[in-house]
Amino acid sequence: MSTRTSAAPSESAQSLYHAMSGLAGPLSSGEGTAPDFTAAPRAAAGTEPSVLLLGAGVGGLTAAYELGKLGYRCTVLEPQPRTGGRNRTARNGDKLYELDGEGNSPVLTHTCAFDKGLYLNLGPGRIPYHHRRVLTYCTDLGVALEPYIMETTANVLHSEGHTPPGRPWRNRRIANDTRGHLAALLSASLTGHDEFTGMLRDLLRRFGDLDEEGEYHGSTRSGYTEPLDVHEFPRPAPPLSLSDLVGSEFWKHRFYQPVEYLWQATMFQPIGGMDKIVHALTERITSEYNVTVELDADVTSIELTGERVGVTYRSGGKELRATADYCVSNIPLPVLKQLTLTGFSTEFRNAVAAVGFAPTCKVGWQANRRFWEDDHNQIYGGISFTDHPITQFWYPSNDYFSKTGTLTGAYNFGEHAQAMGKRTPDERLSLAREGAAQLHSEFLEKTTVPQELGVTIAWHKVPHQLGGWADWDPADPSHQVAYKQLLQPEGDGRFYVVGDQASPLPGWQEGAMMSAQYVVAQLHGILPRTAPTDVRVPDSVFLTQGL
Amino acid sequence: MSTRTSAAPSESAQSLYHAMSGLAGPLSSGEGTAPDFTAAPRAAAGTEPSVLLLGAGVGGLTAAYELGKLGYRCTVLEPQPRTGGRNRTARNGDKLYELDGEGNSPVLTHTCAFDKGLYLNLGPGRIPYHHRRVLTYCTDLGVALEPYIMETTANVLHSEGHTPPGRPWRNRRIANDTRGHLAALLSASLTGHDEFTGMLRDLLRRFGDLDEEGEYHGSTRSGYTEPLDVHEFPRPAPPLSLSDLVGSEFWKHRFYQPVEYLWQATMFQPIGGMDKIVHALTERITSEYNVTVELDADVTSIELTGERVGVTYRSGGKELRATADYCVSNIPLPVLKQLTLTGFSTEFRNAVAAVGFAPTCKVGWQANRRFWEDDHNQIYGGISFTDHPITQFWYPSNDYFSKTGTLTGAYNFGEHAQAMGKRTPDERLSLAREGAAQLHSEFLEKTTVPQELGVTIAWHKVPHQLGGWADWDPADPSHQVAYKQLLQPEGDGRFYVVGDQASPLPGWQEGAMMSAQYVVAQLHGILPRTAPTDVRVPDSVFLTQGL
Repeated sequence: MSTRTSAAPSESAQSLYHAMSGLAGPLSSGEGTAPDFTAAPRAAAGTEPSVLLLGAGVGGLTAAYELGKLGYRCTVLEPQPRTGGRNRTARNGDKLYELDGEGNSPVLTHTCAFDKGLYLNLGPGRIPYHHRRVLTYCTDLGVALEPYIMETTANVLHSEGHTPPGRPWRNRRIANDTRGHLAALLSASLTGHDEFTGMLRDLLRRFGDLDEEGEYHGSTRSGYTEPLDVHEFPRPAPPLSLSDLVGSEFWKHRFYQPVEYLWQATMFQPIGGMDKIVHALTERITSEYNVTVELDADVTSIELTGERVGVTYRSGGKELRATADYCVSNIPLPVLKQLTLTGFSTEFRNAVAAVGFAPTCKVGWQANRRFWEDDHNQIYGGISFTDHPITQFWYPSNDYFSKTGTLTGAYNFGEHAQAMGKRTPDERLSLAREGAAQLHSEFLEKTTVPQELGVTIAWHKVPHQLGGWADWDPADPSHQVAYKQLLQPEGDGRFYVVGDQASPLPGWQEGAMMSAQYVVAQLHGILPRTAPTDVRVPDSVFLTQGL
Repeated sequence: MSTRTSAAPSESAQSLYHAMSGLAGPLSSGEGTAPDFTAAPRAAAGTEPSVLLLGAGVGGLTAAYELGKLGYRCTVLEPQPRTGGRNRTARNGDKLYELDGEGNSPVLTHTCAFDKGLYLNLGPGRIPYHHRRVLTYCTDLGVALEPYIMETTANVLHSEGHTPPGRPWRNRRIANDTRGHLAALLSASLTGHDEFTGMLRDLLRRFGDLDEEGEYHGSTRSGYTEPLDVHEFPRPAPPLSLSDLVGSEFWKHRFYQPVEYLWQATMFQPIGGMDKIVHALTERITSEYNVTVELDADVTSIELTGERVGVTYRSGGKELRATADYCVSNIPLPVLKQLTLTGFSTEFRNAVAAVGFAPTCKVGWQANRRFWEDDHNQIYGGISFTDHPITQFWYPSNDYFSKTGTLTGAYNFGEHAQAMGKRTPDERLSLAREGAAQLHSEFLEKTTVPQELGVTIAWHKVPHQLGGWADWDPADPSHQVAYKQLLQPEGDGRFYVVGDQASPLPGWQEGAMMSAQYVVAQLHGILPRTAPTDVRVPDSVFLTQGL
């Protein structure tokens, strides 16, 4: 086993890592896999180095898992009474804390009052099929998955630009009438009579469901005019006009987000809640490996002055101190910035201070009737988008056709999230109800969706989190320096930053796990402890919102 | 309760039916629902009319269910040793029979040897979200449903026109590179500088992921060049060229089928196999209503000469006879044509003879490893399309991440189905293996997907079925007369034809259930027993294949 002084792993060690991570093989685009560290050397019994892991988010837990498998003695210090960080699922009795108006003291804002058995993911809610690390860990840990439906053509879109105003459009009409009109326009613009142009016209006919003349007059892809009966045949709904479609500017309201790679089918979610991953990881590391998880352990300072890493933390009203050979910090950068850091380089301090975390809010509802699945709505999963500040409205991809269910009644960003976060929970719910009522009249009254069964979270006000994800911006020159700096350990290889914040996938669990594997490989001496010369900066807005 | 002489129900009765079926309300496009016959009058105890139902397919069982609820005394005669008709799920030990070369005698072709617990739907395999009758019956009967994934962007398409040949393309590349190129072409053709054209250009940028100049140079929507790592960022795969895309004629190989309304997300399938619907229906009608199901009861003649309907059938080596007040035939028209029909009109006989059933084959495989879900393939459900005679290749939408699974290794139509049906089961499997190997090299050897674990069915050779669905063709004038005729009872309202064959949705269970509800409403006297003057003809090719 390498020690922290082995800063330059051999080329063969790097090859080993690449072989383990499947990066050496001839992969098709977009493929990747998790490394199998079991092929790496382990420390002899009795000589296992120790590691302090700060924060039991997905990155910290994954690092503890891989380090534990490699034989390291690990202690995870977590300030909250639960593991998981932003991977949080709300259930009956769960208490939600946010910082007070001054941003200082955590205040209990409300307690989740969902019926027992119901749940809602407040943080990450879906796993793309190409996030191989998450899927592989789920398989490894026995976390059962089910499809997350990102889009159904029964979803609706609300925009003030609609004609008639206030009447949401079905996804299938927007998607397919747009395809039809665009294909017809292009077909009309083609002047050639060669074979290629003929084939292109044929493609356009199929692409947009055009008639033989290359014109678009509506399609059953957009739905039927009337419900079918034995002598009532499928007839295409009259198409939305191109001018109405363009006038609504529907594409500015995330309509094409499901087309982006991160949200393409088939997506998954753990059955029973996203925190099943966290629970399984926590159970595995504490039962099978030399890993201790201390909850309610709030780190206040980190010192790199001695031979070992020193950490001071508060627990049970006392100030305690721990030391270890290595330290892996899963603390969000804006929180880390507030700690007393001793013996850290200026470059590192600048990097920690360079990037903020993005504001983002979610609202969750319990509905006492799954009205969105009825004969009128026919919605099973997916998202309705809106120009209202709630931004989006998620339908559950679980327990279809059952009696009750939970809805994500808002998931917003930027100014909408900032403004919503300033309101009280009850005010947020009222705002969210207003936005939801534009989509579903059931929200006009409080019987089907009672106000007291709503939950809300403003992640930028949550203690120990302070935001949804590192708000990396490729246009900010300081971010270029900062991101690269975070890929390199401090203190002669003793201190590492982990998490989706130090990955090309901010806001995604895959990024947290990728970062954990990278840091473990660095710490274990099988990857260089210096970052490559040229490292890009994540585009957090695109990666989290697809726009 | 009406009798069979009440041929002209009152307007209020029709209103009742429409109210019950939800057709009266202001529905959005494409919506519909199943009628609630419980609002209709019931016969007094002891005076319940009797009904003979011929064939226990989905249409026959649904009719028996609704008639049973209304108090009719029902007997279902089914020639096979199981109910369900084309709704059939293959499991270990299931015997597959087909007619011999002369088309006369049923021959045991093979026995399904899947591991216990595995299954594959040989008939219908999916339920659209707008097929409200199927979904409502499933809820009513307690049939648990899970999403059927029609398309994932990880699916592939094989076409000899591909460049390089023999290398299948990912769905995400075809779909998104085509969008990009078409949007860029249209953007370049726009000459206006008005506000509308500016907005249209903006739409095209988002639609096709164009750059600021309206050009397409590839998109991460098509996947990444390299798997991500901490300093390996998302880069778009190089786009397929428009000439390669057009040259492949990919759209001729069903690529856009998932865009059609019948296959749009969210689709469903019963957990455990499509025949869960059949089992639940059979259990419900026999346990809760006055319905008897006689299996192995092969009808040979039907007589409408007396006051009642007479039926002769073979069972247990004997010829038996039954009579009833009414008869509802769920027998496929090509089979009905072969029976001795006495007392039927010429118009009706002509209608029965007018339409054939379409040839269609399926092949099913057990795979001992879910290789399609591995890091290389990343395929969870959906369909890969190919220009090989297998036509399509379905991945399971159930039991993801488990060890083994079943695949639909062929589902073809027309000439491909005719040709495949002429081969022996082993020859069909060898042909299907050849087509599958163009998509997945695991089929080159027989370890992962053993030949002896394959199943195959040529529906047009299955006794009592003789095809996949009524092959209605709107271009055939005789079909116009025939379809309308089948919507009207024979023998003064005593004899009715039921099934997807007599619905605008041939090949779909929704059509069978719709037809059953229609016939029950006619028989019960709450719908006219004459069809409207103008009735269209189903387009079976479009409705079953989407092309």
